[in-house]
Amino acid sequence: MDAFFISVEFSKLNMPSYKLIYFPITALAEPIRLLFNYAGIEFEDERFDKEDWPKLKPTMPFGKVPVLEVDGKKVHQSAAISRYLAKQCGLAGKNDWEALEIDSTVDTIHDLRATIAGFHYESNEQAKEEKEKVAKEETVPYYLERLDAQVKKNGGYFIGGAVSWADLTFVGLLDYLNFMMKKDIVEEYENLKQLQKKVEEIPAIKRWMEKRSGAVWP
Amino acid sequence: MDAFFISVEFSKLNMPSYKLIYFPITALAEPIRLLFNYAGIEFEDERFDKEDWPKLKPTMPFGKVPVLEVDGKKVHQSAAISRYLAKQCGLAGKNDWEALEIDSTVDTIHDLRATIAGFHYESNEQAKEEKEKVAKEETVPYYLERLDAQVKKNGGYFIGGAVSWADLTFVGLLDYLNFMMKKDIVEEYENLKQLQKKVEEIPAIKRWMEKRSGAVWP
Repeated sequence: MDAFFISVEFSKLNMPSYKLIYFPITALAEPIRLLFNYAGIEFEDERFDKEDWPKLKPTMPFGKVPVLEVDGKKVHQSAAISRYLAKQCGLAGKNDWEALEIDSTVDTIHDLRATIAGFHYESNEQAKEEKEKVAKEETVPYYLERLDAQVKKNGGYFIGGAVSWADLTFVGLLDYLNFMMKKDIVEEYENLKQLQKKVEEIPAIKRWMEKRSGAVWP
Repeated sequence: MDAFFISVEFSKLNMPSYKLIYFPITALAEPIRLLFNYAGIEFEDERFDKEDWPKLKPTMPFGKVPVLEVDGKKVHQSAAISRYLAKQCGLAGKNDWEALEIDSTVDTIHDLRATIAGFHYESNEQAKEEKEKVAKEETVPYYLERLDAQVKKNGGYFIGGAVSWADLTFVGLLDYLNFMMKKDIVEEYENLKQLQKKVEEIPAIKRWMEKRSGAVWP
């Protein structure tokens, strides 16, 4: 019994200390937060005010967030951080081939995000209108149809009939994508809708979503 | 001796057959080609004519290339494919932390590429001009300064003082980036310039670059 306690304490002492730094919103940090919760790893969820960003930006590698601080070492890029956490909780695939399929799907989800962000953040009014039209009428449905078919083909998840960090990435990003698209983008896609439901019903994710604060980009 | 030959034959029989499908250019396929060559893995380098693309596009997952066919199974996303190959030849980091640093750097290199492609492919003339100005005067130098400093800090490579697939990704993409920027973008960045030289002098890479065909995007 003593030995058991010693081993628990020892493993706690060896757990790195994690701090996630981001705006007080979901968006790019939310897949990471879902993964921390799924993995049962404690982390400090530091959310800074938007007006503090110009002061904080020069302290971040490549001036971008989310940033994860691991024992004080800063690392950025949300997909890279998510993959790192996914490896620690068995969500990164059973073998290298599955890891490849998951990575490919995650990058495709980020391509979909980039398409939507492409018109949302466009500052030139005419270009914004052109991009929004193509995105809404062509590119976004193109991606969603194929992602929906992929989930249907793979037993209700993106890869291998089991939950992976590709699923958590998609569900984590959804309200940000919905916000930019001004609609529920999975509404007409039954398999993606069911996937969202299943992920949100995972007990650790459900608990997190009930207690989390932070709207999407204001 | 017999046993040795049997084992070699057996391992050859078990090698997957690889076909890389892309336009007859370097660009997004070149990091993958460098990795195949570095790893000493045979692959079919299928390059289709630009006019055949409309016919081929519907046969590709998510309508994009490069696509890798592994024993007939198609997978896309150049970074995901590169990571898969990097694992097979020891270029994906010594541990999960190094893998995270490599992944983060690769995504940053692709952010740099997206910045440059952002103005290069912009169809709205006024937006193109605005984006090109910001990219050339601010964003691109911002990235290159930090990438250069990272190489300086890490013993002449992006991560851990040794070659990784982040280095091969950067060097593989360089002539595509230079083409869109209409200049040698590492010219003023001594550490990136030395990195390019070192990677291009790796015997397997050197042999490939001497025999490869294909210009950048025409």
